Amino acid sequence: MKENFDILLFDNFETLDAFGPAEIMGRMSAQYNLSYYSMHGGIIVSRQGIRVETESVSKMTPQNILLIPGGQGTRELIKNTEFINSLTELAQKAKFVLTVCTGSAFLAQTGLLDGKKATSNKRAFDWVQSVNPKVEWIRQARWVVDGNIYSSSGVSAGMDMILGFIRDLYGIAEVHKICEEIEYIWNSDENSDPFS
Amino acid sequence: MKENFDILLFDNFETLDAFGPAEIMGRMSAQYNLSYYSMHGGIIVSRQGIRVETESVSKMTPQNILLIPGGQGTRELIKNTEFINSLTELAQKAKFVLTVCTGSAFLAQTGLLDGKKATSNKRAFDWVQSVNPKVEWIRQARWVVDGNIYSSSGVSAGMDMILGFIRDLYGIAEVHKICEEIEYIWNSDENSDPFS
Repeated sequence: MKENFDILLFDNFETLDAFGPAEIMGRMSAQYNLSYYSMHGGIIVSRQGIRVETESVSKMTPQNILLIPGGQGTRELIKNTEFINSLTELAQKAKFVLTVCTGSAFLAQTGLLDGKKATSNKRAFDWVQSVNPKVEWIRQARWVVDGNIYSSSGVSAGMDMILGFIRDLYGIAEVHKICEEIEYIWNSDENSDPFS
Repeated sequence: MKENFDILLFDNFETLDAFGPAEIMGRMSAQYNLSYYSMHGGIIVSRQGIRVETESVSKMTPQNILLIPGGQGTRELIKNTEFINSLTELAQKAKFVLTVCTGSAFLAQTGLLDGKKATSNKRAFDWVQSVNPKVEWIRQARWVVDGNIYSSSGVSAGMDMILGFIRDLYGIAEVHKICEEIEYIWNSDENSDPFS
């Protein structure tokens, strides 16, 4: 039985935050179904102008892996109570929650990161910290794991985090196989962060 | 006056081949408009299940930068004469043509690579070579430049190539700025290819 790997999109999401991990998880098609959601479904437009057809989150099923990208769109949407309430429910029901870049600001806003370790984009770090100081924000990290929550630094770091996630669950051989397939040079050390 | 950076999509294109470069070129929004095309417009579905709304290539204007991704979809589509004829015209009118992964097989099929240097995905290299042996195929390269044609190795290599393209046209400072923004560790040596 395959598990669901669900990516939550919103207008002005950062393309690579979502589609870097999608590329990699697409290589795990024996284990996961990939789907693309948004609050109400329909066309969502990325910061880089990609128009993506999405399903409504009302169709999402529990015990999934939920990935939340970041991007410029987070700045406005974080003030939207309906969105944050819905995200709180979705994240509580998920088996794992993964955030890329300022996606961790959304998760911080739900309160589910209180007292937990997380990271975010280095260029937006002060803003993300200000969203919720009860989170133990780690500035110097490519990605951070706390329980069932993975959070990564900016944009490209999401690809390194998702390979770390695959290593943790399926072992290093699976990671090497994927890296060969997509000719990707993995930055495998989650503590090495040249951008902090 | 901005130039057009146009990405040609088709069913079963490889997500990161197209959207890795899109992420990076989106950072050059002062210089380029990004658009997403397909032969007849409408929804195109990537190998990783992303449903993307596209415009028809009939609306593409000349003197653009044309990016051609690869992916499983190339294997069937390369036999489609209407597609290859259309691509031949589009590529002849473009200022630069960039291919990622097996996107170079399409370009080889048009004849426009005859006598020119190019590279492709290492896992599909024998097939790509067989498409057109008149191309000077370079096996060991992250990416290759010949005149106004850039071609890259598999999937992730497209991001490194597009940063090379930006360096060639705008200088290294622009590349460093983008890498900082997206926290990307650039593989800057086009001749270093750990996957060949």
